[in-house]
Amino acid sequence: MTYCVGMMLRRGLVFMSDTRTNAGLDNISTFKKMSIWEAQGDRVITLLSSGNLATTQAVVSLLDERTKAHESRVPTLLGVPSMFQAARLVADTLREVIDNHRQAGQEADSAFRATLILGGEIAGGAPRLFLIYPEGNFIEASADTPFFQIGETKYGRPILVRAYDPEMSFAAAMKLLLVSFDSTVKANLSVGPPFDYHLYEAGSLRAGVQGRIEADDPWFREIAEGWGAALRAALDGLPDFELPPG
Amino acid sequence: MTYCVGMMLRRGLVFMSDTRTNAGLDNISTFKKMSIWEAQGDRVITLLSSGNLATTQAVVSLLDERTKAHESRVPTLLGVPSMFQAARLVADTLREVIDNHRQAGQEADSAFRATLILGGEIAGGAPRLFLIYPEGNFIEASADTPFFQIGETKYGRPILVRAYDPEMSFAAAMKLLLVSFDSTVKANLSVGPPFDYHLYEAGSLRAGVQGRIEADDPWFREIAEGWGAALRAALDGLPDFELPPG
Repeated sequence: MTYCVGMMLRRGLVFMSDTRTNAGLDNISTFKKMSIWEAQGDRVITLLSSGNLATTQAVVSLLDERTKAHESRVPTLLGVPSMFQAARLVADTLREVIDNHRQAGQEADSAFRATLILGGEIAGGAPRLFLIYPEGNFIEASADTPFFQIGETKYGRPILVRAYDPEMSFAAAMKLLLVSFDSTVKANLSVGPPFDYHLYEAGSLRAGVQGRIEADDPWFREIAEGWGAALRAALDGLPDFELPPG
Repeated sequence: MTYCVGMMLRRGLVFMSDTRTNAGLDNISTFKKMSIWEAQGDRVITLLSSGNLATTQAVVSLLDERTKAHESRVPTLLGVPSMFQAARLVADTLREVIDNHRQAGQEADSAFRATLILGGEIAGGAPRLFLIYPEGNFIEASADTPFFQIGETKYGRPILVRAYDPEMSFAAAMKLLLVSFDSTVKANLSVGPPFDYHLYEAGSLRAGVQGRIEADDPWFREIAEGWGAALRAALDGLPDFELPPG
């Protein structure tokens, strides 16, 4: 499985992805699920992927190759005029890859599926965030739905729903995401650290702070351990149930 | 869908279940998913059910009927000598019902599936708690796994994992469960109030405090609204991420 979140804040876009992939419980590897395309001053595009690893790697490789084949007439991520067109391009590429596997006579089409989060900014537009389905269609984030999750989404969702605030700082958003990731990791073995992140500042048109949080990162340990105590204290602060006379 | 939790505490067993059932999004009803059998001074047995409603209602009806047919030689919930035998009886009844539907020529066997939580105490034994699978086998709760969830389990799990404490009071356990149920309700339309509960005191051998928490219950409203603020405060109390110089 996988867990990735793309989040829209007033000050920009925040992306985080885990790195665990597995084929069965006894075959676990680490892969980066975040790809970034940058043309400074013109665009920054970030892609998060979940699902079949062969599919998502093929999608990223195709997108990459095309940005380098300048002669080709097909649109590229570095050439499209808007984030909407970028989402269309990625969605078409995803569908193409899945269809190719399927046409090769493979029936287990569900195994080739993948879901993507695409976000970024292209000069002339605002930052935008999309969720792309394996069928090749997509939806866009809005004030009502300001973040997308893919992969193992449920364990980490309640805290996002409760604590997300579009005005929050990158530092606070990272903390929120880490708590959400930690809740997921604690419940699903197929999601695991290290976690990759990218903090894209709106209007900057250059890749923002990015890095990787390892399992033994002292801040991560502090959040993971402190959160249990903080939750119990939060619960203690609420009024107890008044038992009716039994 | 459904959400039910059975939890083992030092002082007894706590059960909570939602009441929403649905056949599609446009066909929603309210059904009690908690059944209690009591023979004061001898035994109290509580059953929580999730899955196909026709299956779970048939299981409960069969168990009920058999406790009333005193002549019959088949074991009954009010006759079995131990909670382990009670779990076997319920599991066999569940498998029997599912098999009957299946033999009637219906192929959609997954639609007939159901999963149950069974807990209680029979004189001479300690309180015990079981999770019963549609295949008719079951597992028992222990100090390592002191609670079971069935139905939509993921959204409400992180808080249970973090805040469960075997020494907690019934009043605190009710609060914990309500937060877990509220997180689930907020994320999945097919889980909804009112919530039924039963607090069985270890060694009492009589049904404990039980009741129903309605959607407009003032305490529930207070918990649901207070929890968001409490979570945000808990998050604020943790150290922010230190942005590396970008």
